Amino acid sequence: MEANKKISQQLLSLRAKKPLVHHITNYVTANDCANITLAIGASPVMADEICEVEEIVAISSALVVNIGTLNQQKLQSMLKASIKANQLGIPVVLDPVGVAATSFREQAVREILNKVKVSVIKGNLAEIKAIYGLQGKSRGVDSIEVVGTDTQDALEAINIAKELALKLDTCIAVTGAVDLITDGKTLYKVANGHPLMADVTGTGCMCCSLIGSYLGSGADSLTAALAGIVSMGIAGEVAFERLDKNTDGTGTLKVHMLDAISRLQEQTLLQRGKIYEEKL
Amino acid sequence: MEANKKISQQLLSLRAKKPLVHHITNYVTANDCANITLAIGASPVMADEICEVEEIVAISSALVVNIGTLNQQKLQSMLKASIKANQLGIPVVLDPVGVAATSFREQAVREILNKVKVSVIKGNLAEIKAIYGLQGKSRGVDSIEVVGTDTQDALEAINIAKELALKLDTCIAVTGAVDLITDGKTLYKVANGHPLMADVTGTGCMCCSLIGSYLGSGADSLTAALAGIVSMGIAGEVAFERLDKNTDGTGTLKVHMLDAISRLQEQTLLQRGKIYEEKL
Amino acid sequence: MEANKKISQQLLSLRAKKPLVHHITNYVTANDCANITLAIGASPVMADEICEVEEIVAISSALVVNIGTLNQQKLQSMLKASIKANQLGIPVVLDPVGVAATSFREQAVREILNKVKVSVIKGNLAEIKAIYGLQGKSRGVDSIEVVGTDTQDALEAINIAKELALKLDTCIAVTGAVDLITDGKTLYKVANGHPLMADVTGTGCMCCSLIGSYLGSGADSLTAALAGIVSMGIAGEVAFERLDKNTDGTGTLKVHMLDAISRLQEQTLLQRGKIYEEKL
Repeated sequence: MEANKKISQQLLSLRAKKPLVHHITNYVTANDCANITLAIGASPVMADEICEVEEIVAISSALVVNIGTLNQQKLQSMLKASIKANQLGIPVVLDPVGVAATSFREQAVREILNKVKVSVIKGNLAEIKAIYGLQGKSRGVDSIEVVGTDTQDALEAINIAKELALKLDTCIAVTGAVDLITDGKTLYKVANGHPLMADVTGTGCMCCSLIGSYLGSGADSLTAALAGIVSMGIAGEVAFERLDKNTDGTGTLKVHMLDAISRLQEQTLLQRGKIYEEKL
Repeated sequence: MEANKKISQQLLSLRAKKPLVHHITNYVTANDCANITLAIGASPVMADEICEVEEIVAISSALVVNIGTLNQQKLQSMLKASIKANQLGIPVVLDPVGVAATSFREQAVREILNKVKVSVIKGNLAEIKAIYGLQGKSRGVDSIEVVGTDTQDALEAINIAKELALKLDTCIAVTGAVDLITDGKTLYKVANGHPLMADVTGTGCMCCSLIGSYLGSGADSLTAALAGIVSMGIAGEVAFERLDKNTDGTGTLKVHMLDAISRLQEQTLLQRGKIYEEKL
Repeated sequence: MEANKKISQQLLSLRAKKPLVHHITNYVTANDCANITLAIGASPVMADEICEVEEIVAISSALVVNIGTLNQQKLQSMLKASIKANQLGIPVVLDPVGVAATSFREQAVREILNKVKVSVIKGNLAEIKAIYGLQGKSRGVDSIEVVGTDTQDALEAINIAKELALKLDTCIAVTGAVDLITDGKTLYKVANGHPLMADVTGTGCMCCSLIGSYLGSGADSLTAALAGIVSMGIAGEVAFERLDKNTDGTGTLKVHMLDAISRLQEQTLLQRGKIYEEKL
């Protein structure tokens, strides 16, 4: 329960501080990211014009970089903003959406990781594998390879996440049926969430907004990634439980997820967070 | 009932295959398009950077091209992706949003149709007329000229659709109070839908995402267009029926449309599809 | 009740005319802006490609310019469209989102105001102060400095709005706990709305879409700004009242706001509009 306690206290800090979270993100889920950032108690700003991103990030408490609908101009803005963030000690989260799908995205992520110290990288297994340099079998941006807890696949995923975290001095969060979060020394397995969340676009993007919000409230990388992942997972569970199983579907599920985050209490994180901690 | 049966079987194929559908689309309704693609059982990828669209389309099963919020860069990406799709035998759907409104859009559609073999073109009558070369009286992007079934206007619309389909060797879908779908030989009239759908932005765009999803599942153009139009229409009906008439409005209607698509069963298509088939 | 009567009659005119409202706006809230424009009874068109904006604005009844996610290309399109709108006598609304945050946005707004006659500028106090040339303490794009009615701050806000309105020959709307709307001669204070609206992104952008819709229906600037602000405020109240306080949150609140606008009656404006008129 130590971890549950830590993230529930972090939620209180977040709401007290109301950090400004700069997003350079895709146009598909930007609205949902802004709304979930407000719902958790932080404040979003979306800005990607290269001549203003340094000023924006300088007044922000965290930067979220998301490569969905990436283009060459936006990449330059991401690099400029991220480098400035590093200079100012402002944490950066990277969401490598569909990185395994094209060489443009691979090169973009390589360049970002070469030039920027990233606090958290959150992706599905295909994305994390692609970054690791393995041949992820990517299939679009929502591909999810289920990670069980005791299988060979799970052990491989843990090893990849651990090595990548140590090599890049970052925190890696691998989302799946069980989420894995590690800084290379401590491993958290999180069993929250619901499979139907995969049928709503942007749950991954929104999760990164939550991680950015927790980072902006002063959490260390591991705590912020854990808090974001657990918060999002619980929101999916609560949203699913509220569904009228005879009439509701994924449209209502999304609305309820935002509801759940805007109502999230420290008690809920304490009681519902299914977190398993291991030392690596 | 032959047509109802065919599209309901296609829904099963779609859900079994879960095709990846590449969208090059506008930023106004991209989120809704992604969500409805997931809801029907396919998988969306939105990507428009010119240096990656060929790679994206090559791993996709269909391409949706939508000229809402078109710009010159995006047009180049559309052309590049569509030509690649043609080379690989991947079907292309065109949504000529507001084509009658500006010469830029007219020229863009002309260029696309000159260089690309399109499987389905879906538009309202003003848009289809503009493509046909008549003077469509366009009024923004949501203009709908109601098409009755027995009027002179309806006969004119059918003739335009037929000739255009034959000339371009494509399937034309004209949306309205009664939707017309034809490949120039067979004509389907569809009487599903609800007028309030016109007060939700993006129902046309979402319909194209459904057509793209059915195409990606292996349907021929006529079946895919029919299945997409009928699915969207039924979703509007179901969504409207669920509304609390004392408090709900268009916000809830949109959420319920996504719900309805995510819950769509082959039985529903069989029973509710109001399809009238004619030979031309 | 004179003002309530005027805006309720304007709502009827709007729904009779169904004006086309051209938006050059950000990609975060464009979908919500399009939906609220439809909900109030107008018709939205979002278009920002420089080679078509003059044609689009020429067939529109109002232009909404919003600098969220501004970039250099979009700024050029805004200028071109706005200058054309001025030539044709089509009213322009400006939403100076986050203008105090960066010098790029400040310069953009300065250039717009130098070259364009704007009918309404709507912003929070930080944004209006930044335009006035004072040092607004901006904190992102959703910063709200509460404006009471009798405090020193309120008097300062009123003075700034008055002077700015007279200097620019425009109508200034300052949103806050109490909204201030003035053309420099008449001042309206509006006490509608609910604090939870600040936790939904884009309520300010949507409000500008409503103002643009009223302007497009033929209202003078002061009436249009008042009608838009009151309509949005009432929508927030109605939406909040409908919430299930045990389960709903900000996701549902947004859906209900769209519902409320789509159901808005002239009676509701008459009865619920909390408008206080003063001569300055």
